[in-house]
Amino acid sequence: METKPALQLRVFNLNCWAIRYASKLREERIKMIGDFLSQEHYDLVLLQEIWSERDYFRLKERLSSSHPFSHLFKSGVIGSGLCAFSRYAILDTFLYCYSLNGYPYMIQHGDWFCGKSVGLLILNIRDMVCNVYVTHLHAEYSREKDRYLPHRVLQAWELGQFIRHTSKGADVLIIAGDMNMHPGDLGMRLLREWTGLHDAFVETERFEGSQDGCTLLPNNCYSSQKELEPFPHGIRIDYILYKGLSKFRVRCKYLTTTKGTAPGKTIPYSDHEAVMATLVVEKQGQAEGPPVKAEELNPQLVDTVNEARTEMRVGLHTAESQRYSSGRMAVLGLLLLLLQGGMSLLSFLGSEVGHTFPKFSFYVLAFLAFAVLLVSTIVYVFHTIEVRLLQGTEAQMRLAVQVLQEKLSCG
Amino acid sequence: METKPALQLRVFNLNCWAIRYASKLREERIKMIGDFLSQEHYDLVLLQEIWSERDYFRLKERLSSSHPFSHLFKSGVIGSGLCAFSRYAILDTFLYCYSLNGYPYMIQHGDWFCGKSVGLLILNIRDMVCNVYVTHLHAEYSREKDRYLPHRVLQAWELGQFIRHTSKGADVLIIAGDMNMHPGDLGMRLLREWTGLHDAFVETERFEGSQDGCTLLPNNCYSSQKELEPFPHGIRIDYILYKGLSKFRVRCKYLTTTKGTAPGKTIPYSDHEAVMATLVVEKQGQAEGPPVKAEELNPQLVDTVNEARTEMRVGLHTAESQRYSSGRMAVLGLLLLLLQGGMSLLSFLGSEVGHTFPKFSFYVLAFLAFAVLLVSTIVYVFHTIEVRLLQGTEAQMRLAVQVLQEKLSCG
Repeated sequence: METKPALQLRVFNLNCWAIRYASKLREERIKMIGDFLSQEHYDLVLLQEIWSERDYFRLKERLSSSHPFSHLFKSGVIGSGLCAFSRYAILDTFLYCYSLNGYPYMIQHGDWFCGKSVGLLILNIRDMVCNVYVTHLHAEYSREKDRYLPHRVLQAWELGQFIRHTSKGADVLIIAGDMNMHPGDLGMRLLREWTGLHDAFVETERFEGSQDGCTLLPNNCYSSQKELEPFPHGIRIDYILYKGLSKFRVRCKYLTTTKGTAPGKTIPYSDHEAVMATLVVEKQGQAEGPPVKAEELNPQLVDTVNEARTEMRVGLHTAESQRYSSGRMAVLGLLLLLLQGGMSLLSFLGSEVGHTFPKFSFYVLAFLAFAVLLVSTIVYVFHTIEVRLLQGTEAQMRLAVQVLQEKLSCG
Repeated sequence: METKPALQLRVFNLNCWAIRYASKLREERIKMIGDFLSQEHYDLVLLQEIWSERDYFRLKERLSSSHPFSHLFKSGVIGSGLCAFSRYAILDTFLYCYSLNGYPYMIQHGDWFCGKSVGLLILNIRDMVCNVYVTHLHAEYSREKDRYLPHRVLQAWELGQFIRHTSKGADVLIIAGDMNMHPGDLGMRLLREWTGLHDAFVETERFEGSQDGCTLLPNNCYSSQKELEPFPHGIRIDYILYKGLSKFRVRCKYLTTTKGTAPGKTIPYSDHEAVMATLVVEKQGQAEGPPVKAEELNPQLVDTVNEARTEMRVGLHTAESQRYSSGRMAVLGLLLLLLQGGMSLLSFLGSEVGHTFPKFSFYVLAFLAFAVLLVSTIVYVFHTIEVRLLQGTEAQMRLAVQVLQEKLSCG
């Protein structure tokens, strides 16, 4: 009888906060991260917010002997920020850009420019197909008045759908990233319940690290103290999730996080804490625990998907009114421009009408009308796309609820 | 012994050319299509260019008894135009929008506004998981000087990747759509070789229809005669592709196309011809032909992927020079605006410098400088995204070539 030992996979996840010209001590921190990773020999290193290709290549060079395989996912204006380093060969990659990701005119928030995505890496470890996903969802800038909530819930749904549809041939799923969601948030519940993924922090056999596994800590000198005011222990928004499929069972043996300052250093690796999991993959029968059961339907899921549908409708309502406003502005801009064109023409033809208005104000107004028309049209187009995508996602969710209800009533 | 008869699936595919206010006799043609489909009872109806939701709902109502299940895929400003009607229950849907799809400023071509995508429908037919894909790729406006070729090849690659990664759990794959590619074009070869899909026209046991299975015919009164001038028999750009996985084998028993005018009518259904396939799905062992073989590596594939990489680099070169041009224009616009701002300030402070320039031209110039700055910045942002996505796709392809070469050298 074959007695292959269980496979142990050590996974490292960190949002590196490496924004050129904006992140403090970026180069030093990237060097620190590279040094740490090259010593620690994690099997999989999944990073977010590596916005500059130069930083990626510095890490790639530093980790060339410990992690010979790597991939940088490219999307958006700035990049997706997602990359992976692996001790095992990467056989294939695929990128899914979330269809909604904030607004291009919200330049101060900048998420739209990042092309937030989920990257998939296919690895073959000891004849096991391992699907590894790395992702980063839209940031939450205000918890009380979160205008990006519908986008983030849509992203969580798309992430779940992407995982479900691309994982059918896999034996092991590992998902890591900065979800920008608290553990109990709608998007996290939707993702976990819809995919059946396990949260390493919840299920780990042993944990060492920050209180409640938080990854944004008030004692991290780079974290936003204002944002963390209502959460004295910090918040947990960075996750490692996993699932065993077919004949495989995955369990989390050990989970740890950094706790503010990096070990033996005076500064942290990032404004987020790193999450490090030791996962054990066992073939069914070989496992100590109960055998892997067939996928069970979670009756709670119907409520969660319905809650997400409500959020899509809330987003739709906002998007529709924004589309209406921008459309109205575009029409006003156009009318004003036409009116001024007419006045100029009259003035050119010698009529006195054109001269009753001061020339300077006239040109400034024309200038403004043109700018309003152009910007409003672009915003209108953008919100039209948003409306369509929210409607489409709501329809996908509605179908999911129907199918779930049928299955539950049959079962 | 179980003697379940082979499953026969009748598939209908048509690009309906249903653009509101632009397509000729749209309403009559949609009615004709609806009447035809409700009589013919195809198992699957896969349509493109149903741009208006009203047309979709008219078809849905007309087909409510023959095809109780349907789905409209929503994306882009106008919509994806993709929809499906089915006699079998649709259990799940998923949409992948191609990451590049023309340019928003090419308004006369309009593809960018359509949000070209591939829609996936999951069906369960007689305990068989059937993945059905419907898609529409970027149009080819000039065969000699096809500036959209890199985008279309990228779309073909993404389509192939989407199919490969989402089909692992399926038994049968059916792909239908308007690929906007001739059978021997790079994108079609890439798609077929990378996924192992079979072309129904090439493999059908019996064919009736237009010469060479063409779907754009010179005798179709709506087709562009100029575009078809070098192709006296027409061109084939609409396809039904298929593949059997796991224990299933699929073969095409019969394929047919319309031939210009719709049967018994004076006008065609669309400017494209409909493609109708009768597919037979047999469980291995039950089939008459040879058993399903394990996936074989096609040595030709390495060359094809390398050819596609070259196309990505060609696209990258163009995108980089367009990004450079628009960046330069934006800087010029900004400089001019700053210069004029300075002159206005001097004039305001009483200096004579501002008056040496005629006021009217001064304002027109400011107006132009602002417009140039705004438009060039948007174009710059767009081409930056294009550069990044072409680079990312080229990297994905490079990895694929590496892995293929390793497999070929081992095998």
